[in-house]
Amino acid sequence: MIVVMQEGASEEQIQSVISRLMGMGFDIHRSTGVLQTVLGGVGAKPDFDTREIELMEGVQEVHRIVAPYKLASRHFRPEGTRVALGKGVVVGGEEVVMMAGPCSAESAEQVNAIADFVAGQGVRVLRGGAFKPRTSPYSFQGLGEPGLRLLRQAADRNNMLLVSEVMDHTQIAMMMEYVDLLQVGARNMQNYNLLKELGRTAKPVLLKRGISATIEEWLLSAEYLMSGGNYNIILCERGIRTFENYTRNTLDVSAIPVVHKLSHLPIIADPSHATGRRDKVNPMARAAVAAGADGLLIEVHNNPEGALSDGAQALFFSQFEELQRELRLIAPAVGRTMPAAPVTAGTPPAA
Amino acid sequence: MIVVMQEGASEEQIQSVISRLMGMGFDIHRSTGVLQTVLGGVGAKPDFDTREIELMEGVQEVHRIVAPYKLASRHFRPEGTRVALGKGVVVGGEEVVMMAGPCSAESAEQVNAIADFVAGQGVRVLRGGAFKPRTSPYSFQGLGEPGLRLLRQAADRNNMLLVSEVMDHTQIAMMMEYVDLLQVGARNMQNYNLLKELGRTAKPVLLKRGISATIEEWLLSAEYLMSGGNYNIILCERGIRTFENYTRNTLDVSAIPVVHKLSHLPIIADPSHATGRRDKVNPMARAAVAAGADGLLIEVHNNPEGALSDGAQALFFSQFEELQRELRLIAPAVGRTMPAAPVTAGTPPAA
Amino acid sequence: MIVVMQEGASEEQIQSVISRLMGMGFDIHRSTGVLQTVLGGVGAKPDFDTREIELMEGVQEVHRIVAPYKLASRHFRPEGTRVALGKGVVVGGEEVVMMAGPCSAESAEQVNAIADFVAGQGVRVLRGGAFKPRTSPYSFQGLGEPGLRLLRQAADRNNMLLVSEVMDHTQIAMMMEYVDLLQVGARNMQNYNLLKELGRTAKPVLLKRGISATIEEWLLSAEYLMSGGNYNIILCERGIRTFENYTRNTLDVSAIPVVHKLSHLPIIADPSHATGRRDKVNPMARAAVAAGADGLLIEVHNNPEGALSDGAQALFFSQFEELQRELRLIAPAVGRTMPAAPVTAGTPPAA
Amino acid sequence: MIVVMQEGASEEQIQSVISRLMGMGFDIHRSTGVLQTVLGGVGAKPDFDTREIELMEGVQEVHRIVAPYKLASRHFRPEGTRVALGKGVVVGGEEVVMMAGPCSAESAEQVNAIADFVAGQGVRVLRGGAFKPRTSPYSFQGLGEPGLRLLRQAADRNNMLLVSEVMDHTQIAMMMEYVDLLQVGARNMQNYNLLKELGRTAKPVLLKRGISATIEEWLLSAEYLMSGGNYNIILCERGIRTFENYTRNTLDVSAIPVVHKLSHLPIIADPSHATGRRDKVNPMARAAVAAGADGLLIEVHNNPEGALSDGAQALFFSQFEELQRELRLIAPAVGRTMPAAPVTAGTPPAA
Repeated sequence: MIVVMQEGASEEQIQSVISRLMGMGFDIHRSTGVLQTVLGGVGAKPDFDTREIELMEGVQEVHRIVAPYKLASRHFRPEGTRVALGKGVVVGGEEVVMMAGPCSAESAEQVNAIADFVAGQGVRVLRGGAFKPRTSPYSFQGLGEPGLRLLRQAADRNNMLLVSEVMDHTQIAMMMEYVDLLQVGARNMQNYNLLKELGRTAKPVLLKRGISATIEEWLLSAEYLMSGGNYNIILCERGIRTFENYTRNTLDVSAIPVVHKLSHLPIIADPSHATGRRDKVNPMARAAVAAGADGLLIEVHNNPEGALSDGAQALFFSQFEELQRELRLIAPAVGRTMPAAPVTAGTPPAA
Repeated sequence: MIVVMQEGASEEQIQSVISRLMGMGFDIHRSTGVLQTVLGGVGAKPDFDTREIELMEGVQEVHRIVAPYKLASRHFRPEGTRVALGKGVVVGGEEVVMMAGPCSAESAEQVNAIADFVAGQGVRVLRGGAFKPRTSPYSFQGLGEPGLRLLRQAADRNNMLLVSEVMDHTQIAMMMEYVDLLQVGARNMQNYNLLKELGRTAKPVLLKRGISATIEEWLLSAEYLMSGGNYNIILCERGIRTFENYTRNTLDVSAIPVVHKLSHLPIIADPSHATGRRDKVNPMARAAVAAGADGLLIEVHNNPEGALSDGAQALFFSQFEELQRELRLIAPAVGRTMPAAPVTAGTPPAA
Repeated sequence: MIVVMQEGASEEQIQSVISRLMGMGFDIHRSTGVLQTVLGGVGAKPDFDTREIELMEGVQEVHRIVAPYKLASRHFRPEGTRVALGKGVVVGGEEVVMMAGPCSAESAEQVNAIADFVAGQGVRVLRGGAFKPRTSPYSFQGLGEPGLRLLRQAADRNNMLLVSEVMDHTQIAMMMEYVDLLQVGARNMQNYNLLKELGRTAKPVLLKRGISATIEEWLLSAEYLMSGGNYNIILCERGIRTFENYTRNTLDVSAIPVVHKLSHLPIIADPSHATGRRDKVNPMARAAVAAGADGLLIEVHNNPEGALSDGAQALFFSQFEELQRELRLIAPAVGRTMPAAPVTAGTPPAA
Repeated sequence: MIVVMQEGASEEQIQSVISRLMGMGFDIHRSTGVLQTVLGGVGAKPDFDTREIELMEGVQEVHRIVAPYKLASRHFRPEGTRVALGKGVVVGGEEVVMMAGPCSAESAEQVNAIADFVAGQGVRVLRGGAFKPRTSPYSFQGLGEPGLRLLRQAADRNNMLLVSEVMDHTQIAMMMEYVDLLQVGARNMQNYNLLKELGRTAKPVLLKRGISATIEEWLLSAEYLMSGGNYNIILCERGIRTFENYTRNTLDVSAIPVVHKLSHLPIIADPSHATGRRDKVNPMARAAVAAGADGLLIEVHNNPEGALSDGAQALFFSQFEELQRELRLIAPAVGRTMPAAPVTAGTPPAA
């Protein structure tokens, strides 16, 4: 911590700050200039509150000099983290990993149709919700565990992995039976009881950024997970709240290179939730990959206009095909790869 | 719902929108002007998604014409709601209800000293946390249930009520044994599993606004609680996130008259969390009461500089005394009352 | 400036930063701890760009340790500035100074009716616009100089002072003939050509905060004015842009105590523009005074529903009377005074 | 305009709204449902203020049904506008138009070195400032007209066009002698005196988005220019202010596809000012092109670390070369072209 004393701060005030800092466990370096004294504090544990010092007499400003997160910091693993999801799919490597599927599971027919289609497009990770946190109590709240079962079956028949959202720490054990990647939604980014429990598992976690979370707060939530021992964390930028309301939220594309500098964790983008409108999904998906995203989370539906939730942001199949074509051109420009569409597109493996 | 068609929209496009609206359960009123056709839809349930229509061919704009909340709306109870907390304390009546105490319970001595002091100032509701949601996993996380026991005892010895935060639906039953008012924190404003369970109880709930929640989203969270049958809801404005960082958050004082117009629910303000600095708490507390707040939630500590959490925003005893004096002058200017400090200030009732 | 080097920064990197800082004119204090080296730079002029150093190899963080403004800082005049507008009216003293009138001058009848009324309520400063910056080119743009003449006459017949907005540096000379206080609008807060020219006059300036200006940027704009020699600056908080759209902008009431701490300049509030709705003006006006505002800028109209601009935020006469009554009760609670309504209310002086 | 009356609004209230709307020049369509009455108003000029109606008794909500801008709307020119800058350079066509150069002109050597370099990279438009709006009065304010002369000479010797910022309407005539494209800076987006004067010229204008301007406000500023008769407008997204402070502003990449839908005007992006840090410029430049930007405005310097202004966001030559290489791969993925680097790279034409 660096404490800048006001011009003309008294020796008594300075000593009072020094003794307070020592009480907090800091070693002190004092530097007295012509006008001002600056105190450097080194060595305490990172959970101190700089405001305590800020409010003392004679203090002008206080700055912390260590990031409040450690395990999530780039220094901890300068080479970067690769999160292996299984079946050879790795997030944070060369490949831009596509995760696609419906907002919610609605029926076996719907889930299978969508899974078969995206598998045919080369996608290896199916997304789909079974428990839907909805702003209104009167909206469709998801199929629950039966929805998870449908999603798992649809993933298996296409040799895919499954990502789905866990809403609560009481659901973790049940969900681990179905999914390969547990999603923590934006509204739960600071649900610490949930984060602590997930930190005790070894299951990969997809941690969405809260709509008003700073990048530092987001990395602190990753720190909660990692401090429990779970290092398999993927971050997901999904739009922040700004004054501009034309799009539902504003996809903070710059968070992608910023996170790559500050942290070793991989980061993907969710342009579906950020924009809330399917006609803006493809441009923003391209932008995210061009900025260096390690993957994308995209909503696709076989009948967007009849979807039970968030249909307005789900792509039609033809739009998703177009997106895949565009991304196969953009990925190499940033030194990344995209899987080719398999020849056996849409054909389920012999069960 | 009102659908404004583009100039030059074709009859086919118009019919297509009409049939979609009818499929959603709306009765349609069509109004064809010289340039544009406007369609009015009435009667569907309130959980429709206007974006569905917005994306159709020929549509220019869509507006919902009913608020997405009903039970929380002023129309539902034009006369306003008064939430009785017990022992004669009512929020939403004439009196400005003060709730004061430490951020967290730390020890019996600390809790008792603070409770005795604020009781002596005429405060009838003790606040204090036992489970602390902290941004960093390395910060003090609260004493847990033993902390609740200390708070309850401190409240009882001063004939006070107790408000404390519930972090999770699994804690509800346990917490109801200790507290008179269950606080839902800003980070949990959209924790729907928690809201649904609280809606099934009859215990008064203090619902804090999320730091990036619009007033509409906040009232929708109140709707979750009320749709379960619990109408004893008090709203609490505690600062929103803006670009200005001098204060931790920006207390949205204007939310107070806005909520009073839109909803029948009482609203209090928490200037301690909003500003994050004790030197800004009193001015903002005065502002909130002058704007019509039904009460205040204030952090006070017997030793703010030694507090285990958020000491920087806790008032010294002398500051709280000054605040009470100022509020006793302001409250009558807005037609409200403040309780006088009891003569027996600080003396616990004979046990 | 404080430069925190990364853990493990090389001696070469450290020397490179030192020589760069010396090139910028800093004296350097070096403090080498076990893990990290911290460099303190003192003495350069305040216009350096910390990002220059931030991007150097081996640098972790950079903090400036002096506020980028000097003349606007509280240190410059710890006792506070009182801006005398003439006729005994002083902003920044004991009295809460009310400035009231129409958004725009529309006609002699309108201007006189409003001026007579507010004078009768004890108001000493008339507000009114002649040049209206409007978001749409199709909106009423003001009467121009003839409007100023009407406003001046209406002020004179009531022995009042006049405040009106200057839109451009080419208008300054002309406007100085009519007004006692030159208003710089929110959109012009960073119109530096205008600020520089106003700095060369001695006329009091009312500097509105830009809707997305931080308090630091606002004080830097005041610094532009003061560095030209004009110290008669009054700041005006008029609402900032946030994600909440129920009110037009969000009045940042906390800016009032923050500015009082950081600067010696007086600060008033404009709840009319902040809220954009007359039913929210009075609660926010009361809040601003309770938080310590040195005055208020309020729109009042004799026929708000027929106003040519911003009628929705203009108070009816009866609402303004009610506000004055309420403020006379609140002002003493914060150690301020309000002028009593003169007995001769509404009677123009014999001309 | 659509006016939704409250449930239970009286016939008197409805008639009062109708007569008010008719007074504003609207034709009224009334639609009375079981619960609510909806009034549609068609035909008035677009500068009405919906708040006027919103505040009337019995009114629940008001929506405008026409965009407040007309000439800037996509309907006005569905095929899109191509702005010809001269020498065959067209913005809004197939080519992604690069504009590059220093933040400010500092000397003939500096300007020539940079212009020669970027010309050698295939860039046809030189950027550079002569009048610098700076937040601090103590910062470098630009060379003024001599700087423009240097920039013009550097452009001419490379057969390039020149874009530079005009700060004030009094500078327009002088600047038109030097530049091919007049830039209106973010702080001047709502300087209406400037916009009106520029609207009377035929010179192409680059209109930057204000840091807190909504897309609608931005298009209204374009409307100011166009309503004067100047249709040669290019929009420039340069970052908006959000709560996230790691980057200076947040480049709103989604504004690119949104503007392409709402307006016929071309839109380019300025990742240099948005991010404020050179290490984030290239990722965001790639993202903007991938999202469909019609061009880019990039700061490049021959000695960024010695630049007199904003050096931290200026690219080194090698970084700009890398960016050009990447963009040549990305442009075709979105159906665009980039000019190849000329063989005579860096060689000025024989003078």
